[in-house]
Amino acid sequence: MVDSSDATTTNRQYHLAKRPTGEPDHDTFELVEAEVPEPGPNEVLVKTLYLSVDPYMRGRMRDAESYAEPWDVGDPMRAGVVGEVVESNHADFDAGDVVVGNLLWAEYAAVDGGELTAVDPDVAPVSTALGVVGMPGRTAYFGLLDVAGPKPGDTVVVSGAAGAVGSVVGQLAREAGCRVVGFAGSDTKTEWLTQDLGFDAAINYKTVDDLGDALAEAAPNGVDVYFDNVGGEITDTVFGQLNVDARVAVCGQISQYNATDLPTGPRKLGTLIEKRASVEGFLVADFAPRFEEATSRLARWVDDGTLQYRETVTEGFENAPEAFLGLFEGENVGKQLVKVAERSH
Amino acid sequence: MVDSSDATTTNRQYHLAKRPTGEPDHDTFELVEAEVPEPGPNEVLVKTLYLSVDPYMRGRMRDAESYAEPWDVGDPMRAGVVGEVVESNHADFDAGDVVVGNLLWAEYAAVDGGELTAVDPDVAPVSTALGVVGMPGRTAYFGLLDVAGPKPGDTVVVSGAAGAVGSVVGQLAREAGCRVVGFAGSDTKTEWLTQDLGFDAAINYKTVDDLGDALAEAAPNGVDVYFDNVGGEITDTVFGQLNVDARVAVCGQISQYNATDLPTGPRKLGTLIEKRASVEGFLVADFAPRFEEATSRLARWVDDGTLQYRETVTEGFENAPEAFLGLFEGENVGKQLVKVAERSH
Repeated sequence: MVDSSDATTTNRQYHLAKRPTGEPDHDTFELVEAEVPEPGPNEVLVKTLYLSVDPYMRGRMRDAESYAEPWDVGDPMRAGVVGEVVESNHADFDAGDVVVGNLLWAEYAAVDGGELTAVDPDVAPVSTALGVVGMPGRTAYFGLLDVAGPKPGDTVVVSGAAGAVGSVVGQLAREAGCRVVGFAGSDTKTEWLTQDLGFDAAINYKTVDDLGDALAEAAPNGVDVYFDNVGGEITDTVFGQLNVDARVAVCGQISQYNATDLPTGPRKLGTLIEKRASVEGFLVADFAPRFEEATSRLARWVDDGTLQYRETVTEGFENAPEAFLGLFEGENVGKQLVKVAERSH
Repeated sequence: MVDSSDATTTNRQYHLAKRPTGEPDHDTFELVEAEVPEPGPNEVLVKTLYLSVDPYMRGRMRDAESYAEPWDVGDPMRAGVVGEVVESNHADFDAGDVVVGNLLWAEYAAVDGGELTAVDPDVAPVSTALGVVGMPGRTAYFGLLDVAGPKPGDTVVVSGAAGAVGSVVGQLAREAGCRVVGFAGSDTKTEWLTQDLGFDAAINYKTVDDLGDALAEAAPNGVDVYFDNVGGEITDTVFGQLNVDARVAVCGQISQYNATDLPTGPRKLGTLIEKRASVEGFLVADFAPRFEEATSRLARWVDDGTLQYRETVTEGFENAPEAFLGLFEGENVGKQLVKVAERSH
């Protein structure tokens, strides 16, 4: 039951009208009017003050298994909400409290109190519980500090740098003693980054002549850490300027979420987000101090039959090019060699 | 000076005739006849027994900065060689010794003894110093055991599984207690993998109807480790079936080395090899036990001015879809919110 001081008894909600193909549009959403719900035992009726819209929501609109359940067509969509408690059946909350939680695209929601977190309005504006001190801030915090691991002197590049996550990433990287370069899509944004947030450089990817040249100028020592919110052409460009031992934290791929085909960018990075997977390139030469360990163990395993091997031997030095070219046709089983001579002893 | 028992005084070599565009062909190589070199102080004259050809050599043919110097056009190309010492000015080697080293595409080479490693012909056939107990074996050893880190029970998928590296990877994964699945390009290869090497399953990617279906059948619990030698469509397929916390060790991308365009596969993985870079996807939800740490530090930094933020606030619940759609146009600076109501207290 709604507080009698509140005249509203209708509760507007957005439901997922249909799953978008490519870009969502207004037909994706259906505005539905319902009754303001009545809170049950342990539930709290929350009036939405701020509703958060986030890029990850595009993924929830797909009918595909992901790290979270997709939204059902016809059901209300979920969102981060900062709201005010209207009525509480939960011991931790009273009417008037400000709370944050994962609620609905709705003006009101009734939710178990255990799913809500109190917001102290005296610490910071309550809306920040959905931004800089909320999920986006935490995403920046763990993604930069734990996943990417910036070191003082590193060059850290951030795409979507003026967004909720990117703007925090850049500032945390600045505090970590890094050179910080951001990509953003307007001069208003790039000016904010360099003039207010302490980014060392910012590139307006929509107006710059050449992304690669701009990045090379902004990051003359190459890129040690790339925090990717965007994907696509910007990520292609950054991949081209990674330093040895670079770390790439894949947080988002907003440029690709609406794509039905993926013509640019290191594709499939969205998969890495979903699976929290890591991809690492390596060169065996970097393990040189441990070659003897490997060689002696491999030799023992060959000797005791643990390891089997085959060799594809092309006879004749003059056939070396043929043997090499055959590699690309997969003509070899096991190691491809060219036998040039017999041992004379 | 060559041992008088050896009649040959000409030394055939292959030089890089020109840099290939796309697939190398015979015009890439020039057969040059030279004198057998005379070893200088500390040098050893080595007669090539086995010459190794390896996919990585394609990279040396490019005129591009990489982890190693590109070969110069007109110069002899380099290769792993198992050879026999013909003449030695180095204390560690005598005529008749078998050695391995990074020498030349040539029948003879004179090289500082410090660059050679003795091969014991009694341990294993000397050719294995270029294969299973040589660079490919070590690549498998460190790439699988150190970079990918297989755990008992993991499903490990290997592309190029019947090659010099892949065939060792699969056997090491088997020894590590993993389910092992290999991709290879002929029935001869897949039979070797499953019948002799103990792979649990092998897929002939050239004849199978549907790569995804075949992998789903061979790896019904998904993919925990992917050791990639190949790239392209196979890697696309494996990316689609990665498990949470999967590790991908990018060793090679042979399907892409000759490509002038990259239409398939998670592109740019070659960059990760060159830079030994890692890419990791992450979800902030996985850090839930540390949310309080993050939130309190972020709030303190906002409070003391360390962190600045902006919010882009769309007024009116009914405009939530517009606000969401604007994210993909980059219309927001900082966090995008929808303001639905004023606080009543």
